[in-house]
Amino acid sequence: MDNAIVLLSGGLDSATSLFWAKKNGFRPFCLIFDYGQRHKKEIDNARAIAKKAKCGYEIVKFNLASDTTSLVNKKLKLPKKVMPDEIPSTYAPARNIIFLSLGVSFAETKKAQFIVIGTNQLDYSNYPDCRDEFIRAFQKAINLGTKSGTQAKTIKILTPLQNKNKAQIIKLAVKLKVPLELTWSCYAGNTKPCNICPSCIIRAKGFKEAGVADPILR
Amino acid sequence: MDNAIVLLSGGLDSATSLFWAKKNGFRPFCLIFDYGQRHKKEIDNARAIAKKAKCGYEIVKFNLASDTTSLVNKKLKLPKKVMPDEIPSTYAPARNIIFLSLGVSFAETKKAQFIVIGTNQLDYSNYPDCRDEFIRAFQKAINLGTKSGTQAKTIKILTPLQNKNKAQIIKLAVKLKVPLELTWSCYAGNTKPCNICPSCIIRAKGFKEAGVADPILR
Repeated sequence: MDNAIVLLSGGLDSATSLFWAKKNGFRPFCLIFDYGQRHKKEIDNARAIAKKAKCGYEIVKFNLASDTTSLVNKKLKLPKKVMPDEIPSTYAPARNIIFLSLGVSFAETKKAQFIVIGTNQLDYSNYPDCRDEFIRAFQKAINLGTKSGTQAKTIKILTPLQNKNKAQIIKLAVKLKVPLELTWSCYAGNTKPCNICPSCIIRAKGFKEAGVADPILR
Repeated sequence: MDNAIVLLSGGLDSATSLFWAKKNGFRPFCLIFDYGQRHKKEIDNARAIAKKAKCGYEIVKFNLASDTTSLVNKKLKLPKKVMPDEIPSTYAPARNIIFLSLGVSFAETKKAQFIVIGTNQLDYSNYPDCRDEFIRAFQKAINLGTKSGTQAKTIKILTPLQNKNKAQIIKLAVKLKVPLELTWSCYAGNTKPCNICPSCIIRAKGFKEAGVADPILR
């Protein structure tokens, strides 16, 4: 069994990636990031998902430069709709770049040759660090910038959801028995999803198209 | 004046890079990293160097996966000599990858179009993430993974010391009036340098070749 570091945010995509990794014979270890995000709910959810999957996990803290992102800075307003071709205020500079970098560090330390990340670029919020071309460029940087890379045991980034739309991801999640009731997508951290933010809208559209009832709305 | 994020470790190279940036018309803001390193001395030194340069700075904390690196894990022994073609136990998985990633985040937030890092690859410890080919690969990842990259205002990594040997760096430092007495290279954090670890050996050789007395040995 190969060790894999799974980057687990507590959302739908990363949870599905975790269960995909389990199904495909990897031994996952989850990294859950605490970077001062707007609400801690997703961290609690990520922890619950890792436990449900019976995986080891670690909460990894870091200071994100937070002045400009509404994902962290509560003084900034959350966006209220999906804007095609526009990067919303929830864009957190270098968020996935930092997640992957910390993932590489843990992968090398824990002898995991794989990092699993739930990026996808069909129904998404135009974040540049979710695109396949970024992932491929970052892979090259890992090949050249790590000890394992120089020893031809390069850590490989796996993106099982990269070219799936949200409905396809939800169908896969159902098939993999992902505890969808534990996933949290809403940018606001209230007890119920706001149903206004882009993340809620994309999620609702995905569930509708997949013909699945979203258990968190029950 | 262009804003530049300077990655400041408290060592000779990063201090020289900071004064190089000042001399070359940049307005530097320093990031000093606290990742649980073996000793806090270098953080204090970095802070003193930033103050001496009259620059703003921020101490950025993160969890480094630390089991395998003697730079963090005090149970592991520090290396006692320079081993050509071998990566020593002080290698910290993805250290510069994480530094640069956090640098990108701050650069984008603080509207800095430049990141200055003191990597060099002549008299160094064989860390793969100090090599020019890694820096170039990481640059491509930034171009593709950031908002500024997609808007053709890509953040550029500057490596003013990349192809200098240690003696050349020290001569440049003297010319730039770098407060060499505030720089700290030794992997151990005692009051005096150990003069055994690779970092001390490379530093001593550099000062000797440059014909300069190392002020921290006085």
